Amino acid sequence: MDLVRVQKNIGYYFKDIRLLRTALVHRSYLNEKDKLPEITEHNERLEFLGDAVLELIVTEYLYLRFNEPEGYLTSLRSALVNYKTLGKIGQKLGLDEEILISKGEREEVGQG
Amino acid sequence: MDLVRVQKNIGYYFKDIRLLRTALVHRSYLNEKDKLPEITEHNERLEFLGDAVLELIVTEYLYLRFNEPEGYLTSLRSALVNYKTLGKIGQKLGLDEEILISKGEREEVGQG
Repeated sequence: MDLVRVQKNIGYYFKDIRLLRTALVHRSYLNEKDKLPEITEHNERLEFLGDAVLELIVTEYLYLRFNEPEGYLTSLRSALVNYKTLGKIGQKLGLDEEILISKGEREEVGQG
Repeated sequence: MDLVRVQKNIGYYFKDIRLLRTALVHRSYLNEKDKLPEITEHNERLEFLGDAVLELIVTEYLYLRFNEPEGYLTSLRSALVNYKTLGKIGQKLGLDEEILISKGEREEVGQG
């Protein structure tokens, strides 16, 4: 896990680097036999928080940018914030290479 | 619509009072025969934005307050942020008396 590279790619340097490390641990990794002993926490609590942050950022952007009815804005948001789009952005940022995930899960995600 | 009373009840005074006025206009009101001529906009775009703000506020609170798994936090959030609970809070703040809504819709909401 190259946290310097990740921070460079996302253009943000963490005050508490442990947050970034935890954010890159998929739940499945903690059951791997050869896992790093210092990794004990997965990213699901951070994901719960991050989803709401992302939702507000995108919502505010669309609200300010488009003077359109709620239904239109909701459709736009669904087109932007979803598994596929976020997956692509993650790949562009090289997060797919840095995330700690079990071998089985990685194959499944790769096919998805 | 007594906007002074609403601001007193919620403990916040708006820089742009038009935002508060629009926030209190239900879509159905705009079709009422005896509607106030100066009211031309309903609250659905603001609701789109407000839902995301509320979601983040509650999510951050739960994340910081409870060191529990994501599933538990999600359940807690659903129990807090829903039609019924928000309706009660709205009533406590006296918003039900101030909102502009068609007579038909008001009866339906009152029964719900």
